[in-house]
Amino acid sequence: MGVVVPLDEARAAGERLAPLLELVNEDMNAINRIILDKAVSHVDLIPKLTHHLVNSGGKRLRPMLAIASSKLCGYTGQGHVKTAAAIEFMHTATLLHDDVVDESDTRRGHKTARLIWGNQATVLVGDFLLGQAFRMLVDVGSLAVLRILSNAAATIAEGEVMQLAAAKNTATTEDAYLSIIDAKTAALFAAASEVGAALAKRPADEEAALRSYGRNLGLAFQLVDDALDYGGDSARLGKSVGDDFREGKITLPVILSFRRGNDQERAFWNRTIVEGKIEESDLQEAIRLMKRHNAIADTLERARSYGSIAHDALAIFPDGSEKTALRDVIAFCISRAH
Amino acid sequence: MGVVVPLDEARAAGERLAPLLELVNEDMNAINRIILDKAVSHVDLIPKLTHHLVNSGGKRLRPMLAIASSKLCGYTGQGHVKTAAAIEFMHTATLLHDDVVDESDTRRGHKTARLIWGNQATVLVGDFLLGQAFRMLVDVGSLAVLRILSNAAATIAEGEVMQLAAAKNTATTEDAYLSIIDAKTAALFAAASEVGAALAKRPADEEAALRSYGRNLGLAFQLVDDALDYGGDSARLGKSVGDDFREGKITLPVILSFRRGNDQERAFWNRTIVEGKIEESDLQEAIRLMKRHNAIADTLERARSYGSIAHDALAIFPDGSEKTALRDVIAFCISRAH
Repeated sequence: MGVVVPLDEARAAGERLAPLLELVNEDMNAINRIILDKAVSHVDLIPKLTHHLVNSGGKRLRPMLAIASSKLCGYTGQGHVKTAAAIEFMHTATLLHDDVVDESDTRRGHKTARLIWGNQATVLVGDFLLGQAFRMLVDVGSLAVLRILSNAAATIAEGEVMQLAAAKNTATTEDAYLSIIDAKTAALFAAASEVGAALAKRPADEEAALRSYGRNLGLAFQLVDDALDYGGDSARLGKSVGDDFREGKITLPVILSFRRGNDQERAFWNRTIVEGKIEESDLQEAIRLMKRHNAIADTLERARSYGSIAHDALAIFPDGSEKTALRDVIAFCISRAH
Repeated sequence: MGVVVPLDEARAAGERLAPLLELVNEDMNAINRIILDKAVSHVDLIPKLTHHLVNSGGKRLRPMLAIASSKLCGYTGQGHVKTAAAIEFMHTATLLHDDVVDESDTRRGHKTARLIWGNQATVLVGDFLLGQAFRMLVDVGSLAVLRILSNAAATIAEGEVMQLAAAKNTATTEDAYLSIIDAKTAALFAAASEVGAALAKRPADEEAALRSYGRNLGLAFQLVDDALDYGGDSARLGKSVGDDFREGKITLPVILSFRRGNDQERAFWNRTIVEGKIEESDLQEAIRLMKRHNAIADTLERARSYGSIAHDALAIFPDGSEKTALRDVIAFCISRAH
């Protein structure tokens, strides 16, 4: 384990994000300032815990989508910056609660907040950040944006509860799994992409197009993430490989392998994922079974297919640097797996 | 233990609420229907867990305040009903997360949701209810109301984090404790009372008056609760007596007793509250020490003083059944302790 993705390939994936980064660069600086500013509280623990997570190397993809979609829609006001910061806070709040629910010890290679400050503080600071997010959205003053993001907040939580109910259930269907990631991951991508049209008061078809773009991008993103946890299509072992396996998470590669496997293989999945009895060589064995059944390749195939829907969703917008940047995000998400 | 408050005294306290109950009765039926309706989800666990808490015998004081304040302000629209339901959802979400953070096993004499469905589901359903609350508020469509309640959401979480930081710290000052309950309890009472003026678009001085009424009522309510946990001023032992003590909660009766006590008494508080080493007779001893130092009586004295501020805050409103009902709530809160 610990074999890192070759630098040139990682760079190649990163270069796909370059147009987006250039497009949003100035606004992202403002967003980063707001994030630091709004995490301030006379209660010490709140900024400490927030900074820990905010500075732990996330890509801030969701706020970048909000900025880019605002620009695509020709929005000329200032509300997109606070909206984007609020979206990052909502995402951060979700991560904090996720880590508590999953009992995770590491995230992006760092110790989780719950391991440093405990589950209790982590739950409560998550609540604070969600409250701050809505405060910021009220400042922006668009009821349309508030509607999009309050829907997203409820849907994300619903998705997390669905995931909890499906936990350790190897019989989860692909459909049921897609409903889960549609809610817990794609809903915020969809909302982040839609807010640009809402802020710019664009017609309903443009709002729907951006929503569809974000949703399908989010599905692709999550499926690639699932595949990467088992090494992606080359089964290279990066530093986060095996996290889902060790936490007994049901993801699409597991679902496909379980359904396509024989009795002996299902016994393997039940022992490892359901009962949590994992030995040294089991991750390698899991990857071997996945490769036998094309489970990783097919997961990535699904991701490409959602990516293609996201690509087409943008067709109604005029060509230009914003559209290119948003489409390159799809390519970036997919190419992470190679 | 288990000696119940004599029925006639309980009834006397209950009668104080009668004018409010009559005033809000019709709207509360609508609110109860909305609460059941909005707890619906295709995810089974969500309505189950919500109903468990919503039906567990809370008084719904906060939504009643929202309805009564709307009527006091002459509001004639329909937004107060959804606003009040959203406030109850926010409160319910807070209780769910509180029980997880405090590791509580019972609430209002029932098993807590976390004991039945686990901490994970309890955290996530709390998140869902908070999301639903904001969805409902967006439906109401008043940015003023959204501002009041998003501020309250962030403040409540801040108060909970403050309480966590002060946990087991017997040296907490009375001022620090008041800041905690101001945020974690009084903020939602203040918001619930203020929304009526916001919905009816009344002038700033009326909004401020209702906010002050709610805030001081909330402080009084919490302090009476603190006193009741040690039996109130007659030290009768009702069914929830001793919960705070067993959970090692720092409340005003403890703070006053600790500050006024001698070294031996402080050792007692440190052993029981801080170290959690509690023996059979310790609750009786705690109550004995509180009585020696007038800690319960003085806590109630503070409560009466906040109640008096709440009473005066309503002076600017014309006399009538609404004002009477709201003032009777203060009397109800205080009289619970006797």
